[in-house]
Amino acid sequence: MERYISKRIKNIPKSFLTDIFKLAADEKVISFGGGLPNPKFFPIKGIQNACNKVLEDDGANVLQYSITEGYLPLREYIAKRYKDKEGIDVSSDEILITSGSQQGLDLIGKTFVNEEENVLVEKPSYLGAIEAFSVYQPNFCEVVLEDDGPNIDSLNEVVDENKIKLFYAIPNFQNPSGITYSAEKRQKTAEVLRKQNMILIEDNPYGELRFMGEPVPSMKKYYDNTMVLGSFSKIVSPSFRMGWIYAKKEFIEKLVVAKQAADFHTNYFTQRVMYQYLIDNNIDDHIKTIVDSYGEQRKTMIDAIEKYFPKEVEFTRPEGGMFLWMTLPNNMSAMDLFYKAVEKNVAFVPGIPFYAGEKIENTLRLNYSNVDSEMINTGMKILGDTVKEMMEK
Amino acid sequence: MERYISKRIKNIPKSFLTDIFKLAADEKVISFGGGLPNPKFFPIKGIQNACNKVLEDDGANVLQYSITEGYLPLREYIAKRYKDKEGIDVSSDEILITSGSQQGLDLIGKTFVNEEENVLVEKPSYLGAIEAFSVYQPNFCEVVLEDDGPNIDSLNEVVDENKIKLFYAIPNFQNPSGITYSAEKRQKTAEVLRKQNMILIEDNPYGELRFMGEPVPSMKKYYDNTMVLGSFSKIVSPSFRMGWIYAKKEFIEKLVVAKQAADFHTNYFTQRVMYQYLIDNNIDDHIKTIVDSYGEQRKTMIDAIEKYFPKEVEFTRPEGGMFLWMTLPNNMSAMDLFYKAVEKNVAFVPGIPFYAGEKIENTLRLNYSNVDSEMINTGMKILGDTVKEMMEK
Repeated sequence: MERYISKRIKNIPKSFLTDIFKLAADEKVISFGGGLPNPKFFPIKGIQNACNKVLEDDGANVLQYSITEGYLPLREYIAKRYKDKEGIDVSSDEILITSGSQQGLDLIGKTFVNEEENVLVEKPSYLGAIEAFSVYQPNFCEVVLEDDGPNIDSLNEVVDENKIKLFYAIPNFQNPSGITYSAEKRQKTAEVLRKQNMILIEDNPYGELRFMGEPVPSMKKYYDNTMVLGSFSKIVSPSFRMGWIYAKKEFIEKLVVAKQAADFHTNYFTQRVMYQYLIDNNIDDHIKTIVDSYGEQRKTMIDAIEKYFPKEVEFTRPEGGMFLWMTLPNNMSAMDLFYKAVEKNVAFVPGIPFYAGEKIENTLRLNYSNVDSEMINTGMKILGDTVKEMMEK
Repeated sequence: MERYISKRIKNIPKSFLTDIFKLAADEKVISFGGGLPNPKFFPIKGIQNACNKVLEDDGANVLQYSITEGYLPLREYIAKRYKDKEGIDVSSDEILITSGSQQGLDLIGKTFVNEEENVLVEKPSYLGAIEAFSVYQPNFCEVVLEDDGPNIDSLNEVVDENKIKLFYAIPNFQNPSGITYSAEKRQKTAEVLRKQNMILIEDNPYGELRFMGEPVPSMKKYYDNTMVLGSFSKIVSPSFRMGWIYAKKEFIEKLVVAKQAADFHTNYFTQRVMYQYLIDNNIDDHIKTIVDSYGEQRKTMIDAIEKYFPKEVEFTRPEGGMFLWMTLPNNMSAMDLFYKAVEKNVAFVPGIPFYAGEKIENTLRLNYSNVDSEMINTGMKILGDTVKEMMEK
């Protein structure tokens, strides 16, 4: 059988995420593992109304094939939102609707990354991005993250020593670390990237989920050669698999070629439903409801860490998004903790799959968006107690 | 800008299909160009009922992330249908839900085709498949098609002279040619493929659309190392971008790795809607309605060709599907005919993009599924008259 499999797929392990999702599906388990939005905020009724409306008004068209770029009014809506929220002038020609941000990553890898070229990622980085790019067989370089963004010395070093094709970054409420690049770090990062005029991918699925602190402008404002990935998964529904790439028109034209070969176009019925939902409802009010709740859940989790975990444990304090990152004492293995915790029906993601290079063993990611406050308290106490037990041995 | 673009994308021209779809969208044009199902058969009300049902019964789940393989009851439904229709025992583990058959092609190329390996395609072949595989930079080999399937001498020759990784075929109502492999040709094709035990891809989007003649068993019955691509696009709705790959479990496991990196999973809301629609409605009755109409439209087209076209023009007589294939006299260019016809508001697809190798200039594809009988008559008369004029020059 192996003889049939391509080199590009052979070395990609079956994702950790799959097992995590399967574990998280067991109702006994308190899972801090997934990256799932809280389903209590899914706008079920709003989506239902939108389905009925588009089918009744324009059924024959909404069920037909459509164009690769995506539904024009939806692209215009997204472009306008960049203007309204970030003050960036964006044309609908610069937006490509994708089957989730994950497809955006795949299309970018396919369109821009040749085998053996260098792709720079954060340390740690998003494992789904590492997987998506791995298919195209690049070399990964890493830049160390600090609480306010890349370590600039580390960034200068890697850029001076390697010719980099693109830098993949998540500047807002990073997955997995929860950190956000400060304005100063954005400026300095842009200066370093300019040395090679490499492509910057700003993956921004959580940008709208800020519950404290001040918004920081998109990297696009600091560095023109930036492509931005956006998503409806965290603010409306992930089931639709609907995101977008915002990039220069010349890049979009090439991405459209890749997109066409990949799936013709994103599900057009749900593009129409999404647009209808967005124009018939106040999405900002909806996002505020989500943000208020995630902010509460994040607070509960941090309070619980301070209460139940030993002082030696370090953790980030995200200003938005869905994750925080924990660093156990140096000699402790997050995999060991994972197995012990799962026996007690608590799950999380050990840090290992988030590293494209050297695997750091004592880190882990905790999700607070899909667990209510009581469960957070119960689960974090179990986890904290388990860490204490491990320290005593 | 060019320096950023990967080798794999650089050489793929922007698809002909895009322009054809744009032309077909002009309401003045009678288009035999697209591959669009007739929207009058879209089950708008059935889809609407299914949307309401799944959102009302299970809204929080249908809007959440799901598993990469696809919704289990839908995979079971597809597996059972293979048993019922083809007498093949299929397990749900052997089905992967894809974002349309086009994504099936992309995932297969990604998972099985290394750069420079040989991919065998029919001459002519489906242009979307040529595009999808081209991304993975194979060499294409071709086998000549006859009215009942591959020319076996041509097949033997190409297989004896080349090590082939996979053979991509559309044995039922082929796109673009409309031909169907006879049982005898399937048997003989299998014998040749066995020499190298290569992978056979049986792309079967039109298999259920037979309006005359007797069904012929799937290539899977003749050749075990076959993967089958299926689609809901032609029998329910193409807008959903929903298809599947049926393959051995070991292959599905590798395809799942590629699928996960590509988009996590196919739109789960519409997987649930599709399943609900399928179990609440009689899909066979629905397909019969489509088939009866396409059979009529095909008859109208063939009658019109016999009436309006010069005797020197040859064409296929499909027993199902959506296309027939026309061969103009030797010295006549289908591109020339295309430009003259478009001036008279009639469109079709010239044969050139359907060839992976040598481009044959005097062939063209005609679609009859998305044009009603009156339009077929009007359009075919214009086309026939134009051919006659060109012959007189």
